[in-house]
Amino acid sequence: MGEARVTAALAALERGAERTLADLVDLARIPSVSAAGFDPVQVERSAERAAALLEAAGLAGAELLRLPGAHPAAYAEWLGAGPGAPTVLIYAHHDVQPPGREGRWLTPPFEPTVRDDGRLYGRGVVDDKAGLLLHVAALRAWREATGGLPLNVKVLVEGEEEIGSLHLSELLRAERERLRADVLVLSDTANLATGLPSFTVSLRGLVVVEVAVRALDHPLHSGMWGGPLPDAATALCGILGRLTDARGAIAVPGLADDAPELSAAERGALAALPYDEAAFRADSGILAGVPLSGEPGRSVYEQLWARPALAVTALEAMPLAEAANQLIAEARAKVGLRLAPGQDAERAARRLLAFLEADPPRGVRVEARLESVAPGWRTEPVGPAFDAARRALRAGFGREPVAIGCGGSIPFVGPFVAELGGAPALLLGLEDPICNAHGENESLHLGDFAKASRAAVHLLAELAGPAAGSAAARLR
Amino acid sequence: MGEARVTAALAALERGAERTLADLVDLARIPSVSAAGFDPVQVERSAERAAALLEAAGLAGAELLRLPGAHPAAYAEWLGAGPGAPTVLIYAHHDVQPPGREGRWLTPPFEPTVRDDGRLYGRGVVDDKAGLLLHVAALRAWREATGGLPLNVKVLVEGEEEIGSLHLSELLRAERERLRADVLVLSDTANLATGLPSFTVSLRGLVVVEVAVRALDHPLHSGMWGGPLPDAATALCGILGRLTDARGAIAVPGLADDAPELSAAERGALAALPYDEAAFRADSGILAGVPLSGEPGRSVYEQLWARPALAVTALEAMPLAEAANQLIAEARAKVGLRLAPGQDAERAARRLLAFLEADPPRGVRVEARLESVAPGWRTEPVGPAFDAARRALRAGFGREPVAIGCGGSIPFVGPFVAELGGAPALLLGLEDPICNAHGENESLHLGDFAKASRAAVHLLAELAGPAAGSAAARLR
Repeated sequence: MGEARVTAALAALERGAERTLADLVDLARIPSVSAAGFDPVQVERSAERAAALLEAAGLAGAELLRLPGAHPAAYAEWLGAGPGAPTVLIYAHHDVQPPGREGRWLTPPFEPTVRDDGRLYGRGVVDDKAGLLLHVAALRAWREATGGLPLNVKVLVEGEEEIGSLHLSELLRAERERLRADVLVLSDTANLATGLPSFTVSLRGLVVVEVAVRALDHPLHSGMWGGPLPDAATALCGILGRLTDARGAIAVPGLADDAPELSAAERGALAALPYDEAAFRADSGILAGVPLSGEPGRSVYEQLWARPALAVTALEAMPLAEAANQLIAEARAKVGLRLAPGQDAERAARRLLAFLEADPPRGVRVEARLESVAPGWRTEPVGPAFDAARRALRAGFGREPVAIGCGGSIPFVGPFVAELGGAPALLLGLEDPICNAHGENESLHLGDFAKASRAAVHLLAELAGPAAGSAAARLR
Repeated sequence: MGEARVTAALAALERGAERTLADLVDLARIPSVSAAGFDPVQVERSAERAAALLEAAGLAGAELLRLPGAHPAAYAEWLGAGPGAPTVLIYAHHDVQPPGREGRWLTPPFEPTVRDDGRLYGRGVVDDKAGLLLHVAALRAWREATGGLPLNVKVLVEGEEEIGSLHLSELLRAERERLRADVLVLSDTANLATGLPSFTVSLRGLVVVEVAVRALDHPLHSGMWGGPLPDAATALCGILGRLTDARGAIAVPGLADDAPELSAAERGALAALPYDEAAFRADSGILAGVPLSGEPGRSVYEQLWARPALAVTALEAMPLAEAANQLIAEARAKVGLRLAPGQDAERAARRLLAFLEADPPRGVRVEARLESVAPGWRTEPVGPAFDAARRALRAGFGREPVAIGCGGSIPFVGPFVAELGGAPALLLGLEDPICNAHGENESLHLGDFAKASRAAVHLLAELAGPAAGSAAARLR
């Protein structure tokens, strides 16, 4: 792959920057919320727009992939590099989170707006419509500059990522032949800091449990009955209060011990990453005077990426406005347990369920129900595909990329990689610490968007390698 | 007071029974909910109806007593027994609780309906419209049978009892001269069992605290941030979970120790009361398999009436339907602390507030705010007024009356008694264990209503005493 061709593609990318931004804004205008209760026609519209963008970038066979009861995915491919050349499968998603509390948006969520801070604000701009557009821009630039692409390219744009990729496994099985590839590029993760290119090499798992406590068949006057009779709210607090200790470390026996310990080398790599506590605090929105806490003796990155963490993520009994000095008959909560990469998720779920139901305060009835369970994922960032990604990111961002973990869970990554035969998976993305993905006022740093698009131009060349004919085998 | 006159009054009561029930139904048709957000015109209507009922019973000067911003009270009196005769002040209230969840009512709350079980169902029928009507019936019977009453009678029917008697103290001060009496009859409490006449000699106090926990300035993705960062919901559960022990006993240091211990005689009197655990469980609605609990070594009656008890009475964070795997920024709760009669309420409130705010899990911000504080009350059930009540209840119900405590709080009783110079206070009522006052399907046992009305006829004679001229002094 000649340096001149890359230079020409980068120039085409630059010329197309305005169009790329306009395409992103158009796509982000579509309120493609995949969650129940929102208009599925909008998800359909965004799938069609995604397919059209891929077609306009020169890919062939753009179509919507459908399964019964599922929001459609968009798919397109270009196989002009021939059977001897390597094939990359690029993944992004076109659905978005609900907008949340509309009143908290400074500009309307589905009217994408560039502000003076150099960021584009709107629902889905960074998660994950820019994740699609940066590749669209790179593919278009290569086609314009050279009439082709350095390697075979397949692009899958999912429509259900924000609701747990409900049908993705089924889709992968149904389309296994068509989606076969030598390397995966998943374009939906984060950078450690604005301007710092990062590839994600581990994800935490997630167990979600719903807990219901019942004590009485109806609420009772707390004066006439309080003392010998239990109530569900106090009992629930007792149950949830013993899940963690005063520092926030998990107190469920065995749960923390089951997490694989990092090696000294891995811990050293985390320690070498840039970390600015003041910036971390500011980005998180932790209140002044409230300390960081959690497991003693573990760094912030180790806790976030390599250790289990537990939080009560929903809590519901009598609302304060309806309180009437009653003993509450029934109370409910959700508990979210993040798992270390490599931690046995089923075993963790069993431990949590058993602990929640064991020895309830005052002998009340407790039902703990598993809502979802997904293991984490991790990869060794070594080999030619990672080397190619490092060179591309360095070239696009002008900075040495870092390998990071992700505290969140992308449940489909593990099955995705397995379904595609264990191809190396490059998890790249554009979220930065202040982007507020999933929250109100989600935003995209436009400088990073430009850098990531340049990196994507380089990545296509780097993955193709200097000798395209032999690269397919090399990437594994 | 001749036996013949009582017999004649009882006969008149019997003749008027149908009219009394019709009057009660008419009064209970008025949705006189005093709570904010309900139509105050209905409370006005019930005050007018109460005044009209008193006038029709032969009392004079029926009028509404008003204070700025207050729902009106109804008042009437009959002073025909002369200045040498004793004077009784009868208290009831004409306002009611909100109906609650309308769908849970088997018959509409404001269409009072007699069912086959011999009970009248409707909001306010037992709390406290029957409490007024039983005295109206007795007064009317005496007037019809004898042309007068055995002693001077004043009747005050409050319109704000269900919202904490907001203006009652002010009203009592403003009307101190007019309301002067030798004995108080408060007609708004409970009987230990259906058919078992009971006078209430103690009330618990009540401290209500609102707790707010704040950790973050906005919700965060629990995967991206969970571990080193605290959340408000888990911390709140930790705080509330340590208020009581696994049996439900209060764990706030000093709170239980501050409660005055019963004497051996008092404990013996409680032990002598009828107690049927199966009936108590059935009446309460405690779920099968859930044990009674609380402070070890204390009987159910001692716990209910003479010991502090604590419950979380409201709990609010992320509702389950809106849960999105987030670290919750802010969570709130209400804690209701019932106090033993004689327990220092201000001191108890300080202890609770300090414990809630001390040493918060993970150093989150906790604000505990006192919403209300009211001490309990107790009296020694000795002397001629109590003797008179015992005889009247025995005659009306055909059973020996019992002295009981009340686990609830009637905050105005203490100030009421004090404002009226420490006159003896007879707390009588009609609520039985299954009446579900404040809940849906509130009901009145019509047999007890008839018995209590007969007791009220007797009570007027008994309080007047055999020698009316000297009775006023004797009642104190």
